Amino acid sequence: MLWSRFYIPTLKEAPADAEVISHRLMARAGMIRKLTSGVYVYMPYGLMAINKVAAVAREEMNRAGAIELAMPMVQPADLWRESGRWALYGKELLRFKDRHERDFCLGPTHEEVISSLLRGELRSYRQLPLNLYQIQTKFRDEIRPRFGLMRGREFIMKDAYSFDRDEAGAEASYEAMRAAYARIFTRLGLRFRAVEADSGAIGGKFSHEYMVLARTGEDAIVSCAACGYAANLERAASVPPAGGKEEASPPPLEDIATPNVKSIEELSSFLRLPPESFIKTILLRVDGRLVAALVRGDRMLNEIKLRNYFNAAQVELLPPEKTLELCGAPAGFIGPVGLKADYMLADYELAGRRGWIAGAGRLDAHLRNLDLSRDAKVDAYADLRLLTGGDPCPHCGAALELARGIEVGHVFKLGRKYSEPMKLNFLDENGVEQPMLMGCYGVGISRVVAACIEQNHDEAGIIFPPAIAPFAVEILNLDPSSKEAVDKAVEIHNLIAADGLDVLLDDREERPGVKFKDADLLGAPMQIIVGARGLARGVLEVKNRRSGLRAELPVVSFTTDFAAWQDTVRAEWKI
Amino acid sequence: MLWSRFYIPTLKEAPADAEVISHRLMARAGMIRKLTSGVYVYMPYGLMAINKVAAVAREEMNRAGAIELAMPMVQPADLWRESGRWALYGKELLRFKDRHERDFCLGPTHEEVISSLLRGELRSYRQLPLNLYQIQTKFRDEIRPRFGLMRGREFIMKDAYSFDRDEAGAEASYEAMRAAYARIFTRLGLRFRAVEADSGAIGGKFSHEYMVLARTGEDAIVSCAACGYAANLERAASVPPAGGKEEASPPPLEDIATPNVKSIEELSSFLRLPPESFIKTILLRVDGRLVAALVRGDRMLNEIKLRNYFNAAQVELLPPEKTLELCGAPAGFIGPVGLKADYMLADYELAGRRGWIAGAGRLDAHLRNLDLSRDAKVDAYADLRLLTGGDPCPHCGAALELARGIEVGHVFKLGRKYSEPMKLNFLDENGVEQPMLMGCYGVGISRVVAACIEQNHDEAGIIFPPAIAPFAVEILNLDPSSKEAVDKAVEIHNLIAADGLDVLLDDREERPGVKFKDADLLGAPMQIIVGARGLARGVLEVKNRRSGLRAELPVVSFTTDFAAWQDTVRAEWKI
Repeated sequence: MLWSRFYIPTLKEAPADAEVISHRLMARAGMIRKLTSGVYVYMPYGLMAINKVAAVAREEMNRAGAIELAMPMVQPADLWRESGRWALYGKELLRFKDRHERDFCLGPTHEEVISSLLRGELRSYRQLPLNLYQIQTKFRDEIRPRFGLMRGREFIMKDAYSFDRDEAGAEASYEAMRAAYARIFTRLGLRFRAVEADSGAIGGKFSHEYMVLARTGEDAIVSCAACGYAANLERAASVPPAGGKEEASPPPLEDIATPNVKSIEELSSFLRLPPESFIKTILLRVDGRLVAALVRGDRMLNEIKLRNYFNAAQVELLPPEKTLELCGAPAGFIGPVGLKADYMLADYELAGRRGWIAGAGRLDAHLRNLDLSRDAKVDAYADLRLLTGGDPCPHCGAALELARGIEVGHVFKLGRKYSEPMKLNFLDENGVEQPMLMGCYGVGISRVVAACIEQNHDEAGIIFPPAIAPFAVEILNLDPSSKEAVDKAVEIHNLIAADGLDVLLDDREERPGVKFKDADLLGAPMQIIVGARGLARGVLEVKNRRSGLRAELPVVSFTTDFAAWQDTVRAEWKI
Repeated sequence: MLWSRFYIPTLKEAPADAEVISHRLMARAGMIRKLTSGVYVYMPYGLMAINKVAAVAREEMNRAGAIELAMPMVQPADLWRESGRWALYGKELLRFKDRHERDFCLGPTHEEVISSLLRGELRSYRQLPLNLYQIQTKFRDEIRPRFGLMRGREFIMKDAYSFDRDEAGAEASYEAMRAAYARIFTRLGLRFRAVEADSGAIGGKFSHEYMVLARTGEDAIVSCAACGYAANLERAASVPPAGGKEEASPPPLEDIATPNVKSIEELSSFLRLPPESFIKTILLRVDGRLVAALVRGDRMLNEIKLRNYFNAAQVELLPPEKTLELCGAPAGFIGPVGLKADYMLADYELAGRRGWIAGAGRLDAHLRNLDLSRDAKVDAYADLRLLTGGDPCPHCGAALELARGIEVGHVFKLGRKYSEPMKLNFLDENGVEQPMLMGCYGVGISRVVAACIEQNHDEAGIIFPPAIAPFAVEILNLDPSSKEAVDKAVEIHNLIAADGLDVLLDDREERPGVKFKDADLLGAPMQIIVGARGLARGVLEVKNRRSGLRAELPVVSFTTDFAAWQDTVRAEWKI
């Protein structure tokens, strides 16, 4: 492709509302333009990157035996009423009426549509398993769309749905998708983790998220270099306490005057004791009950673990005024002794150890020598805390690493969540009607491109992995007025294109500086620099965009030398 | 592809609401399923056909220098207010509010979006011309969606938009698109006509429609086999009258009593004279004025020509009660003599000739010996009538043929219709700001598949042209329990697939009759029938789906023989 026949409107400055690096670079590289909040035009260069990701996803879905179809974006409300989600799904579901005043929505996901489609078609266990997928534009009316393609309202998604007759089949379908997802992200050249995660509103007990690792990621994850375990930080299990020897009982409780010392930090510096010496007491309303959650002073309560412990629908922190009203002290002075809660739950880490310091339940006072088994009424001990880096891996005990990631894929076991209400049944070998077991599997195709850039960039611009790069190679002709340079640039362009590679030739009448800058901004992993001066010396320059390393290749043996050099660049991108 | 690993749910019966053949066959062949009125799921087999059409369209657009991008489906109302179409576009524009109560619509077309996109980007004449296109799902809230993909609400369209600095450029862009469209439909193997057409609501004075010829087509078109002229019947020009010798003046007007004889048909049989002897007088309200339109008794008034003659916004037939009130007689007895109309317009054909019979303007009476120049006040003569088969071609005079067609593409010159209100300007060589000249060019990708089937089918099912066929070749293994048959079928399948062709192998445990029926229904242009009996004789059978001709090819030389046979089948599809 010649730059002069393509349309890449690069910008010197990113738009003012572009907060994150991928948004800034995609706008500057002419990949996207904002139409309205959370809604973007995929410009030609951006669309090419999206199509590369889509193509790899399609190939790997096909390889896994999934079959492509395309479902409508406009969905009738009646289907969502059947599944119960018309009432449950909030304002993210964009709803409207057609000209006949019938209710519809723009599809944010397609469980209802595919269930209604197949219940008329699949009748026998002989037709199972089946896995259908699509690559399609979806819409979610996010309350605060931001970060460009990272959290848009309109986006492109690959969504697959599997249908099985029994648990073993559903498990096999799930594992086939996990394997396909690993292949997709590996082939794309992205550093990623498949982490255990919660399933949120889609349903199912169990899921895996695919996280592209990036310093700027929204999600915190832990992973173990030793055994490969990885989990969303909010889900990561702590190691249950070893049943070792109990500590001896401490002296009796003793008051400490702590005037105006409220936070663990203040207490730690006031008493000159580390935060591990204290117990933090957090009061919450859990489905209407008053729950006190106790964690060590240096730990954070993991609300998701608490929610799962109670299998609760609603969890909220008790507001400060309520804390005072119900427990007789402001939040900073609450403690487990004499606390009037409906349920007191303590983190595993507090079991066995004694001699804690905690709030006294009175203003400006704490207690020392606290022994939970002696002085308080703990209803149960459980895994309640957020892990941190260095915590032991729950599988192998090695030290966990903390990292940040961007969610680009998610696989769910849905079980009968949709097939039961929507009556998606099949007849088993005995002629008995049974609901199918479903799974659903998504890849945020447009988001992958943004996540890729969050992971792979430098100050000069994007650094695309070869598999996602719209153009694997960019040729910069520094001397567009030299016939020799033009001829050589076009010759190389045609050679590379004939090899089946997407190649861009910057043939514009622009200064070399502009071309160098734009090439680094656009991020093709390989650059070939053609200039009259080099040609006079019989050489062409190549540049590895990621390492920045340049080399001169003799014109006479360019084809062979370039092939070899290309292999070394690609090898660096192997995950 | 093995049938057992694909998903083609064929049906014996079409759904009750499937009225047209393409809808019936697409449902039966498992290509589409209805989700709700006018909204269809593209099933795997249907999606493949759509993708084949899209791929050819994409290749030819790229060849023509157009550049692909992807614009959002959700569009802010503000852009439509700028162009003025928010008020003008009726209920076909699906409108809704987002969670912040801002107005949006689902894009039925993208002139507004692309204009707003480029006005921030294109500034100089040096950046022109530019042609951008997308292949995308669109939504039009049709009042009466029907005929499956022929008139759906959600559909896939290829839409391109060109931007030029002057008329010569706009003309060149238009012609490049016409050439690309001719290549697209020719390559797809469809019999089609490019016809001159009106431009309707999109704008511009001039357009061409691409019509796939089919007996069942919604549109009537005329075409000339001699010179290639083709036009929408509603637009087709009649040949202006030759300025020959005028007929002599007839005797004076004379009354004929015609009690209860109202229609031309009744008059013709009552007076035993052919319909060509009469003048038909049609009364209309044209932008508030009372207009009388005169055409020969055997002709039909072409309301579009009348509308264009007056450049009118509103044209409606005068209701019967108003005819009596304003003109003193019921519609059947109205005539040009003494008629109180604001304007009397007669068809060219009535000029020069005399001695007509027409309504007398009184109940139960007509007049004979009518001479329009002597007895009536005709304001003007113009081309007012619908052409019919046999009418002379306006370009070369040869007899025109009438045909029916299905519109699958439309190219428009938009001029400054959008660039002016939306301020899409560029600076010319003299630094003067000017609005760009635009064109827009659409292909109904999903509709092409339906139109293809309307044109190419028989009682047994679909007959796909090789270019659109999801599978160019279907292999029927009649003996799935014979190892020899299975091995041979798979061997041939793999050979053909390795050639880059899409091939389907029906490997199901079904009776031969089921496979024959399904293969004819699915419509692959080439069938290969593998059976134990034929293999025992050393032959494989091939069938040309269109001609129905079968041939036996020896197993030993199958590869060569099949290649030669394939060439003959493909040659029959060359347009």
